[in-house]
Amino acid sequence: MSENSFGRLFRVTTWGESHGPAIGCVIDGCPPRLKLSENDIQPWLDKRRPGQSKYTTQRREPDQVKILSGVFEGQTTGTPISLLIENTDQRSKDYGDIAQSYRPGHADIAYDLKYGIRDYRGGGRSSARETAMRVAAGAVARVILRELIGPQLIIRGALTAIGSQHVDRELWDWSQTHKNPFWCPDVTSVERWAQQLDAIRKEGSSIGALVEVVAENVPAGLGAPIYGKLDAEIASALMGINGVKAVEIGEGFGVVALKGQENADPIRSEGSATHPKFLSNHAGGILGGISTGQPIVSRMAVKPTSSILVPVPSINAVGQEVDVMTKGRHDPCIGIRAVPVAEAMIACILADHFLRNRAQCG
Amino acid sequence: MSENSFGRLFRVTTWGESHGPAIGCVIDGCPPRLKLSENDIQPWLDKRRPGQSKYTTQRREPDQVKILSGVFEGQTTGTPISLLIENTDQRSKDYGDIAQSYRPGHADIAYDLKYGIRDYRGGGRSSARETAMRVAAGAVARVILRELIGPQLIIRGALTAIGSQHVDRELWDWSQTHKNPFWCPDVTSVERWAQQLDAIRKEGSSIGALVEVVAENVPAGLGAPIYGKLDAEIASALMGINGVKAVEIGEGFGVVALKGQENADPIRSEGSATHPKFLSNHAGGILGGISTGQPIVSRMAVKPTSSILVPVPSINAVGQEVDVMTKGRHDPCIGIRAVPVAEAMIACILADHFLRNRAQCG
Amino acid sequence: MSENSFGRLFRVTTWGESHGPAIGCVIDGCPPRLKLSENDIQPWLDKRRPGQSKYTTQRREPDQVKILSGVFEGQTTGTPISLLIENTDQRSKDYGDIAQSYRPGHADIAYDLKYGIRDYRGGGRSSARETAMRVAAGAVARVILRELIGPQLIIRGALTAIGSQHVDRELWDWSQTHKNPFWCPDVTSVERWAQQLDAIRKEGSSIGALVEVVAENVPAGLGAPIYGKLDAEIASALMGINGVKAVEIGEGFGVVALKGQENADPIRSEGSATHPKFLSNHAGGILGGISTGQPIVSRMAVKPTSSILVPVPSINAVGQEVDVMTKGRHDPCIGIRAVPVAEAMIACILADHFLRNRAQCG
Amino acid sequence: MSENSFGRLFRVTTWGESHGPAIGCVIDGCPPRLKLSENDIQPWLDKRRPGQSKYTTQRREPDQVKILSGVFEGQTTGTPISLLIENTDQRSKDYGDIAQSYRPGHADIAYDLKYGIRDYRGGGRSSARETAMRVAAGAVARVILRELIGPQLIIRGALTAIGSQHVDRELWDWSQTHKNPFWCPDVTSVERWAQQLDAIRKEGSSIGALVEVVAENVPAGLGAPIYGKLDAEIASALMGINGVKAVEIGEGFGVVALKGQENADPIRSEGSATHPKFLSNHAGGILGGISTGQPIVSRMAVKPTSSILVPVPSINAVGQEVDVMTKGRHDPCIGIRAVPVAEAMIACILADHFLRNRAQCG
Repeated sequence: MSENSFGRLFRVTTWGESHGPAIGCVIDGCPPRLKLSENDIQPWLDKRRPGQSKYTTQRREPDQVKILSGVFEGQTTGTPISLLIENTDQRSKDYGDIAQSYRPGHADIAYDLKYGIRDYRGGGRSSARETAMRVAAGAVARVILRELIGPQLIIRGALTAIGSQHVDRELWDWSQTHKNPFWCPDVTSVERWAQQLDAIRKEGSSIGALVEVVAENVPAGLGAPIYGKLDAEIASALMGINGVKAVEIGEGFGVVALKGQENADPIRSEGSATHPKFLSNHAGGILGGISTGQPIVSRMAVKPTSSILVPVPSINAVGQEVDVMTKGRHDPCIGIRAVPVAEAMIACILADHFLRNRAQCG
Repeated sequence: MSENSFGRLFRVTTWGESHGPAIGCVIDGCPPRLKLSENDIQPWLDKRRPGQSKYTTQRREPDQVKILSGVFEGQTTGTPISLLIENTDQRSKDYGDIAQSYRPGHADIAYDLKYGIRDYRGGGRSSARETAMRVAAGAVARVILRELIGPQLIIRGALTAIGSQHVDRELWDWSQTHKNPFWCPDVTSVERWAQQLDAIRKEGSSIGALVEVVAENVPAGLGAPIYGKLDAEIASALMGINGVKAVEIGEGFGVVALKGQENADPIRSEGSATHPKFLSNHAGGILGGISTGQPIVSRMAVKPTSSILVPVPSINAVGQEVDVMTKGRHDPCIGIRAVPVAEAMIACILADHFLRNRAQCG
Repeated sequence: MSENSFGRLFRVTTWGESHGPAIGCVIDGCPPRLKLSENDIQPWLDKRRPGQSKYTTQRREPDQVKILSGVFEGQTTGTPISLLIENTDQRSKDYGDIAQSYRPGHADIAYDLKYGIRDYRGGGRSSARETAMRVAAGAVARVILRELIGPQLIIRGALTAIGSQHVDRELWDWSQTHKNPFWCPDVTSVERWAQQLDAIRKEGSSIGALVEVVAENVPAGLGAPIYGKLDAEIASALMGINGVKAVEIGEGFGVVALKGQENADPIRSEGSATHPKFLSNHAGGILGGISTGQPIVSRMAVKPTSSILVPVPSINAVGQEVDVMTKGRHDPCIGIRAVPVAEAMIACILADHFLRNRAQCG
Repeated sequence: MSENSFGRLFRVTTWGESHGPAIGCVIDGCPPRLKLSENDIQPWLDKRRPGQSKYTTQRREPDQVKILSGVFEGQTTGTPISLLIENTDQRSKDYGDIAQSYRPGHADIAYDLKYGIRDYRGGGRSSARETAMRVAAGAVARVILRELIGPQLIIRGALTAIGSQHVDRELWDWSQTHKNPFWCPDVTSVERWAQQLDAIRKEGSSIGALVEVVAENVPAGLGAPIYGKLDAEIASALMGINGVKAVEIGEGFGVVALKGQENADPIRSEGSATHPKFLSNHAGGILGGISTGQPIVSRMAVKPTSSILVPVPSINAVGQEVDVMTKGRHDPCIGIRAVPVAEAMIACILADHFLRNRAQCG
């Protein structure tokens, strides 16, 4: 349970700084004899990769992943899988200013308060670059889920709001999410969002966003009732993504206003006691910390990045008061690239809980 | 890292069912030579205890805690502290109906889907009774925080909404929370809430609620930057409380609509680089997963209890479709009793992170 | 991984001091729907219980175990199993002397050096009384092994030396171990040992012993190749028993003098690649940290207890030099009662590794 | 707590196969602001490196370690330290034979029994090559111990027997261990051992060995009394090294023959209650699982390697009976190269326990 690891039986340890020679991760606990190659991982990294549209940072990294261990003749061996991506585009000088000053809203100052030292180049360890390894690990988790549960288990995410512009949920179409640079499921929102982001980018500012991830056909029985709750671990996994400040499951904050009979999802049997049908999904697929077989619905709020060109009052490392503005290449809306990261975290959690459940319940 | 434990260095393992002979917990990792007796724990349990007003379940448990180990001559010894509360008021027959049928919205069915067996008496392990041990552990965590950090560190919670009736934040007064049965910080809401709950109770229904916990004067530097993030662990801890469906830190879901400069908390030095002053607290006291010294602000949404007298369509254990209504003594608003539980979870997390930080950073 | 827990998926947390009100443990991760009652546990505790012959301490404890949670209608529910034994015979005054002085060879001084405090009554937490809970947990582990693997898996221990009197291995007869107070498998050693122990007891001294535990019909494939090695975890489990100073697997220290071809166990197939037959067992049933299906053979050396009537130079808590002799009721040979404890630790490790292997390898 | 990690707060995760592109490790939990460069690690790797004398395998690897993360401007940052060594000399064809057959005494068959697949090239993950990363991690642990405790803490190992030729302990001279290829502390044994190993090598066989590691000036109070016992964790760490079959602490198996007063180390105060002086060290520096300030003395038995030219009966992957002899370059006595590995494991454990103790006891 070291601080740079997550998961229990499917366990991922990441390492690396934004401007070091490389970033990587070690995946431990993967079942043996699953087909795995870089081709299973690279497409998911490509989805997250920066520089693909003008709405994400222009840092260009091929982000080419290499498998260094744990795979032999195309199959997992049960030994740890080491993944590595070399850092190739590291314009350190862009970050000269933030070496001495703290970006308000950024982890800069927190690192110094805790460790008394920080690798300020590109944000060092706190850079969103670290999330590439979560996506890589998530790709391996997806292989486990596909091979051990089946292809019907689908995990997919969407961006449902940028700023105060929310999608129209009536128009939700998952196929749209791959056809625009925003993972937007509502085709009518795309143009509006593009204009909003153009304006944000021109002012040198940034904007928050709302992400939703749905996992369908998850078997019932994953999770645990008290402290290994499936929803608690999803909350931790999503809240741990850079810039996330809120997480909800199913009805989420909406439950505050509901009465018991409004929130309870009625159950029908359709002739089977072990495959109940629920008539609604306020629970978001989880009851008492355990999956019920319904879609697992989670949402998270991503703050606007704090690396902006608009000056904000701050201090420098020797305590002088300064105004900080961050040059460099930044995402006007980091929520966009958080979508595949959130999907990956859900995949990792489900793979982990599948193994945990198999251990105890067979 | 067993499923019924939480924390890493300050580690709590709970056990017990609602209608078994007792419930308890084992607290491991407590520093030695701290003064500790039942008197440090009992008052917090009394705050959570049911049967104190007509707005919480009428189950009457003295909830008298006993320390069975780890304390010698009034001081902790560094060995595990075992706490036990005997169950005395177990009217099992009240629950006869739910032995065979699943309460919609309740963990009943999830337990059976996972384990193929459940102790249905009073909800068994899924009963909110388990949270008594979280409160007990939280009381020990508070002793650690008080003795090793100082009495200025204050953790306190409030109920900020019942149903759609929110408190007026302008009228927030912490001292009020102890003067009404709702932990309501706004004296003008109390009567409204009382009337609302009377109505809810009369219809045999229940209602959701919103809880806020604030930890003040937490030292900067607690937490960790990637997967042991302070906010991620708070999210997990709060989401793991019975009935919680959403968690937020600081600005929470509000960040979606903000621009970078609106969300970034300006920093002033007041002459000290190591004790920065922030001019706002959108971050909720945490940046990059690490505490900054600002108040740590968290919120959670608690769903209406699913044990209600209003019938809801469901199934029974052999797959027949039935309507379920739950007789027995239940809280019309479980959010009320969740307040001291949420406070306790925050206390446990802070104690754990204090020890973790001391290990790595001295 | 708190300090008072062991195991990973079958996880045991023990608590309690020798002269506190009770001792107990919490067993987490037990599979559901296994038949379990106090009757499955009590016989193993009775085997370990003191006061059964003149060769073990005369402290008389009924050691009656109670199951407080995790079992419903005679079956495990998958929730934590809490076990408790009340302490009934606590003659604290016998230990008055050691309150102020340190017994040489005992943990007394180490506790004070670490914690600055210790519960000196009966040795507090360092008392061998704690091992009762290991035996109780081992009994639950045996139920898992019997139900999920089968009754052919047998774990049994023997005492193979007291002082320099070793058993004659040619005369080894497992059935003898239950017919004498020493777990001695060689009927010809019993009388010799009895005389030796009588002499030791009369001089107020104590003596070391050698314990061997064999687990037969363990499935191949349990363990892990690098850091969760089955032999490494056995080493830790046995070395962690009070008074143990050495552990070996299979040929043990004997391998030092062997050549490669002498130590390698030849393999024959008997027509099956997946059920190899080994012609010898220098490996003690484990290769590369993984069980091979051969008997798992482990041995441990137990030191003579340091609570003796013979005076030894020591110091007291204020640094004065004193001679210490320990009145009270002590085992002249703690190795005897360590036999069922060692068996129990092996059972716990095998149950844990069975679940761990099932998680990864199905 | 994944299977390829060890340590709790100073936590090491290793990965890599003998003939993959590289091997590496991730070290998590290192305190910040310690000076660290490759120069602190490389010398220890050079000590372990094969091909340095005719008594170790002739595989030639420069074993050049690279730090990929966690160090900035020459100092640790508190973030994970990733170390990598490229594999350069991989003569896979030498191992063609063992692809299909199982070396008796080797992990080959155990991997297949567990995982149903193995990377047979050079032994894959089970190769002693993995221990290079333990040595690298141990070098980082030594930096922590030196900086946070002091240079007086010394950890050093020696080979005390090859086959049945034991050193003369009366002639023990630590300075000799660096002057011969065997880590032999007794200058009079060197020539004898050389002749013995020449003979062993000529017959194509191998031989066992005995290793002793002593850690001096370890602070009192490290360890934990029940399941995180310092000696239990040393036992696990040493037993987990490739080929180790037995471990002892202090008097070790010798305690079996001792009486209580012989085994108890008398204590003198020399005027200080908190810095006791012990007149002997049967305990090997550990009482009740906690260090006492005395030298921590551990020993381990290393079996003869099973990769030998002498044919031994075995089977192949399809169940046919064959005679196996292993061509390729192997150590006639793997115990030699195990010395720096054992030292490294002790260093890692002490660093981990130092941090664990600092967390709980300040």
